[in-house]
Amino acid sequence: MEEVEGLYEREPPIPPSEYVRVDHEALREFARKIFTASGLSSDDAWVVADVLVTADLMGISSHGVQRVRRYVDGLLTRCVNPRPEVRVVRDRGATALLDADNGLGHIAGVKAMEIAVDKARSYGASIVLVKKSHHYGIAGYYALKAVEKGFIGISATNSEPLVAYVNTVGRTLGTNPIAIGIPRRSPPPILFDAATAVVPVGKIEMYARLGREIPEGWALDAEGRMLSGDASRVLSEIRAGRAAILPLGGLGEELGGHKGSGLAFVVDVISGVLSGAAWGYHVGYTVGVAPANVGHAFAAIDVEAFMPREEFYERIETFIREIKSLKKHPDADRIWIPGEKAWRTMATRLRIGIPIHVRVCEELNSVAEKLGLSERVCL
Amino acid sequence: MEEVEGLYEREPPIPPSEYVRVDHEALREFARKIFTASGLSSDDAWVVADVLVTADLMGISSHGVQRVRRYVDGLLTRCVNPRPEVRVVRDRGATALLDADNGLGHIAGVKAMEIAVDKARSYGASIVLVKKSHHYGIAGYYALKAVEKGFIGISATNSEPLVAYVNTVGRTLGTNPIAIGIPRRSPPPILFDAATAVVPVGKIEMYARLGREIPEGWALDAEGRMLSGDASRVLSEIRAGRAAILPLGGLGEELGGHKGSGLAFVVDVISGVLSGAAWGYHVGYTVGVAPANVGHAFAAIDVEAFMPREEFYERIETFIREIKSLKKHPDADRIWIPGEKAWRTMATRLRIGIPIHVRVCEELNSVAEKLGLSERVCL
Repeated sequence: MEEVEGLYEREPPIPPSEYVRVDHEALREFARKIFTASGLSSDDAWVVADVLVTADLMGISSHGVQRVRRYVDGLLTRCVNPRPEVRVVRDRGATALLDADNGLGHIAGVKAMEIAVDKARSYGASIVLVKKSHHYGIAGYYALKAVEKGFIGISATNSEPLVAYVNTVGRTLGTNPIAIGIPRRSPPPILFDAATAVVPVGKIEMYARLGREIPEGWALDAEGRMLSGDASRVLSEIRAGRAAILPLGGLGEELGGHKGSGLAFVVDVISGVLSGAAWGYHVGYTVGVAPANVGHAFAAIDVEAFMPREEFYERIETFIREIKSLKKHPDADRIWIPGEKAWRTMATRLRIGIPIHVRVCEELNSVAEKLGLSERVCL
Repeated sequence: MEEVEGLYEREPPIPPSEYVRVDHEALREFARKIFTASGLSSDDAWVVADVLVTADLMGISSHGVQRVRRYVDGLLTRCVNPRPEVRVVRDRGATALLDADNGLGHIAGVKAMEIAVDKARSYGASIVLVKKSHHYGIAGYYALKAVEKGFIGISATNSEPLVAYVNTVGRTLGTNPIAIGIPRRSPPPILFDAATAVVPVGKIEMYARLGREIPEGWALDAEGRMLSGDASRVLSEIRAGRAAILPLGGLGEELGGHKGSGLAFVVDVISGVLSGAAWGYHVGYTVGVAPANVGHAFAAIDVEAFMPREEFYERIETFIREIKSLKKHPDADRIWIPGEKAWRTMATRLRIGIPIHVRVCEELNSVAEKLGLSERVCL
């Protein structure tokens, strides 16, 4: 929320002394080399690196290069297939089903959204599902791939169980995010990208790194009591399976916990059950003993199937102007359109670099060293 | 939450002395006669009556026959066109756009979902938008129309402004609900049907009728302060434009208010902006001075585009069994699957009748009298 000379960052580095600014191109190239050394093809390595660095650029560091080590661990133990052949196993009209061949989700995700856009170009709209995949990074990346081509893009995924289903305790559902990207005449595009949990686990990880306390309403212990306070302790309880993140809407039904967990459930049914992937507590992560079998869903909509593109753009601009002109809440910093914070953070970080925590730097360099690479980052 | 001899109702009548149980067929026939007398064709009148009575059967009385008077008022003043010719104005592959001709949304909604299902049968998936419409009742009705034919059905709509956009005060967005229906081998189907607001306005209306207090976290006054307590007062503040309902996730961003209002915003962009309907605070209601120009969105997915139907059913049953076997939260009555409460309420009310508040009975009878009908209800 701090802004100096037009340099906005949604998640500014705190304390700044613990972070090193890294040029995005250097970081991407470094991550790519690591993934290539882990067995990925050069093209696939670029895709995975780009998804991670885009998350860091957007200020979603939980889904940025801090994931590299866990991906590499999965690749080296062959929990993740480094050379997947992503195949279309079903194709009918405006739909397709892809088998990710147990590779990283980013590789299948980019391909699936390309197919979704091609199909939307032919049929006006499309849905493409993916099975036998792994973690795919930020859902918003794929929605933006459709937006770049002028289409509305939608993406959702299931993920490792961290969230309590309403009226239960324990980790059953993933944070199962939904992203919806909508093109505008000029950037930033609209990008709704949100976990169906009250917070993504990455936010608790960030609080833990900063030594902060988490507020009441984010986590639940094994007996169904609210768990707040020291973020490191809450995080280790969640990791140990003795606590869970609450769904969007919180505990019980009074403020809509059935809505958040219901959304997470239907995301799981479409991306997991219908795709042929795992669902619920069966979904794994890249460092498990077995393939994660994550499932993803992608959809694209051709704006021009419904109205001339310029008319749509004009209408969107009017709507956004109206939202921006509303009376601001006294406690709010400003009125934001979905995706705007991420976009402005990206603009800043393209200019002055991405802040990478020194511990993440060390971890990345240690991974590079183990893989026999001479390159280092954060120098 | 009370259950006697297997008779469950999600919203039991309190106090029971103020309610009369009415047979659903009699109620539907009565409502149909009222709408026919208000100028609708017999077929259209049946559709509108069926949507309303289905809401009452499911325990969503805010969207049930208590809406009849406001619909009739709109029809008699010609704010609503009683004889709409719903037309397909665009049709491309898996997509279509309908003009509801300023009729009630139920009429266009049923037709739109029929087209969506037909298109999903051909193309595997589809999206159909509707413009120039009015209130369409419960979003879940249309999702279930797809489910009846074995398809996954999705529906969303914008609606009259009642909800504050995150970081602002005042009524800007509708409660913009999203419904997702998923077929099972045998009932109840999965039905997620939720306002993107923390509560639908109907829930506050219900609390007002019962003389109850609303908790902190549902409404916001014009200065951005939480508004709780006496539900009647909160409701009149909202109606007067001096208060707004909070989005799912509540005030600000700590518990996800940006997620709920972001979802409401993208629902509005797709159902309102992209369809050619109104959006945001321009959306009206049936009793306005001008047509409401509500926009709706419908989608259908053919399960068999992705896997054999029986395999899908088997997987869904396993997932549901797993959810039902979780450790229950100590404060919860039981573990529910989305749509299950509505379905069980319907089973009860099909047997013992729908509880209609005596004031709603009186209102319905007064409407019938004004229209010159001899029929009466709740006798």
